[in-house]
Amino acid sequence: MVPPSLLHEFSHAETRACVQCLDGNPENRHHSNQFGVHLRTPGQRECAMGRFLLAFAAIVVTTSIASAQSPSPNGVKTLNPAGAIKTTGTWDVGTRAGDFVFVAGMRGIDPKTNTLVQGDEARIRQAFLNMKLIAESEGASLRDCVRIVVYVTDMFRFRPLVNKVQEELWGKPPYPPRTIIEVHRLNQDDITEVEGTFYAPMKK
Amino acid sequence: MVPPSLLHEFSHAETRACVQCLDGNPENRHHSNQFGVHLRTPGQRECAMGRFLLAFAAIVVTTSIASAQSPSPNGVKTLNPAGAIKTTGTWDVGTRAGDFVFVAGMRGIDPKTNTLVQGDEARIRQAFLNMKLIAESEGASLRDCVRIVVYVTDMFRFRPLVNKVQEELWGKPPYPPRTIIEVHRLNQDDITEVEGTFYAPMKK
Amino acid sequence: MVPPSLLHEFSHAETRACVQCLDGNPENRHHSNQFGVHLRTPGQRECAMGRFLLAFAAIVVTTSIASAQSPSPNGVKTLNPAGAIKTTGTWDVGTRAGDFVFVAGMRGIDPKTNTLVQGDEARIRQAFLNMKLIAESEGASLRDCVRIVVYVTDMFRFRPLVNKVQEELWGKPPYPPRTIIEVHRLNQDDITEVEGTFYAPMKK
Repeated sequence: MVPPSLLHEFSHAETRACVQCLDGNPENRHHSNQFGVHLRTPGQRECAMGRFLLAFAAIVVTTSIASAQSPSPNGVKTLNPAGAIKTTGTWDVGTRAGDFVFVAGMRGIDPKTNTLVQGDEARIRQAFLNMKLIAESEGASLRDCVRIVVYVTDMFRFRPLVNKVQEELWGKPPYPPRTIIEVHRLNQDDITEVEGTFYAPMKK
Repeated sequence: MVPPSLLHEFSHAETRACVQCLDGNPENRHHSNQFGVHLRTPGQRECAMGRFLLAFAAIVVTTSIASAQSPSPNGVKTLNPAGAIKTTGTWDVGTRAGDFVFVAGMRGIDPKTNTLVQGDEARIRQAFLNMKLIAESEGASLRDCVRIVVYVTDMFRFRPLVNKVQEELWGKPPYPPRTIIEVHRLNQDDITEVEGTFYAPMKK
Repeated sequence: MVPPSLLHEFSHAETRACVQCLDGNPENRHHSNQFGVHLRTPGQRECAMGRFLLAFAAIVVTTSIASAQSPSPNGVKTLNPAGAIKTTGTWDVGTRAGDFVFVAGMRGIDPKTNTLVQGDEARIRQAFLNMKLIAESEGASLRDCVRIVVYVTDMFRFRPLVNKVQEELWGKPPYPPRTIIEVHRLNQDDITEVEGTFYAPMKK
């Protein structure tokens, strides 16, 4: 059985091999299976390591996806909970440091397929659900969110949808302090991204 | 007397009822009185709940505006200090979690009228004053600010004004670490927004 | 010998005197020596205080650049480590508050010359190195980073370079949670800015 640390190394090695398909070129749309292995899509040049990695992935199928990282020198824990999206590139989905949980900017990627959810409202809901899952893996609910920043690519179109989705997911006030801004572009020409910080004290 | 929790619910229920006037359409300019009740302005369709709510607001006039929220499961306290702007939409103005105070992105809204202050410099000053009031409600001064992000819609025009306002409000160095960026659009086509985090330890 | 606190006051006084050359007008390019004194460049109107300050700077040459600030009322420590870039304007490069270190948005400014590094990749690397130096001055390595936000002015061109630089500087996973967005403009029409938060507990 492949130890978790090796699996994680593998996951990132694969990412480097495919870096050309990760950087915003809409012609190079890609998707990944649950092991983060890039699959060739029509019109995309085949990933050189694809076949090998698919085979390798089958071997590690019984290994936990939520691989453990050893903490940083100062005790920062990198998060990689089961069910979260797989990162492609030089980032991980979250950290815990002391009593706070920091979640990377989340977009509406379906963790089951690692592709963007179709439909504006559904995609925005998925972005918030992706954030929620990571926070909950460290014991923080949406109510324990201390701040969010929401980036949209069209304030008029997407801010009302963000409001609607938050109202649905939080259910009732209070809501976290929010900063919402319209930016020029998000990765993959996406429409909304949300970054959140949460509070989950080690000793309650 | 209406209990504070009911007042808060009411405030948010009203927000939902008027959500169409909150989402960036410059044709739908609105303003609110001190109870967060939307008043009809020329050219704006009348808010369906407006008359009822105005009447209701009169009843709760003696109730503290700064309604208390019970803390989150993990102990996050939602802030709603007297004198702060009233939120319209799915956000609150700030949180305290442990020793930190997080303030939502503040713009130059006059808390007395809930409308934007006229004049670029005056409006930017108001944004910082709004942030300051919320931080001070938890015992943090501007000198206890640990970071700010300033969003402007024109770097050339507004960065000098931000510098001027900060110099005036802080009085002298040191200043907090700052990130300033020009974005495509802010809510209500505003010109500057500032998000700040503060430090206010429970035990000094 | 000039006490450090006076040097710091001086440094900021000078900044105010020259505020017109700091606010984004590409016609007014300036540079500073290691004491933060603005030097006249061809085509720039002479700074009124320039000559006096240059002379004054010679006097304080033996004084530590990394001047100490007394902490804020709540204990926020303003950072000004040796080797860091010199700030021009109403900001400092970082703070420590409790167990966290907050670094201002860093761009690819060479601290030796206080001018922008030439070359896209080299400039982006410098931005991360500037952040790293400040974090390390408080005992936090890149592995102790809990979140970063990366602002780029072209997602297609600069995100791959950010990935490359992070891979080089971190060496291997894990990486911190990241939010990357394309914004309209950065100060000095720069290409990339990174804001990071770090964890460095007082008691390990």
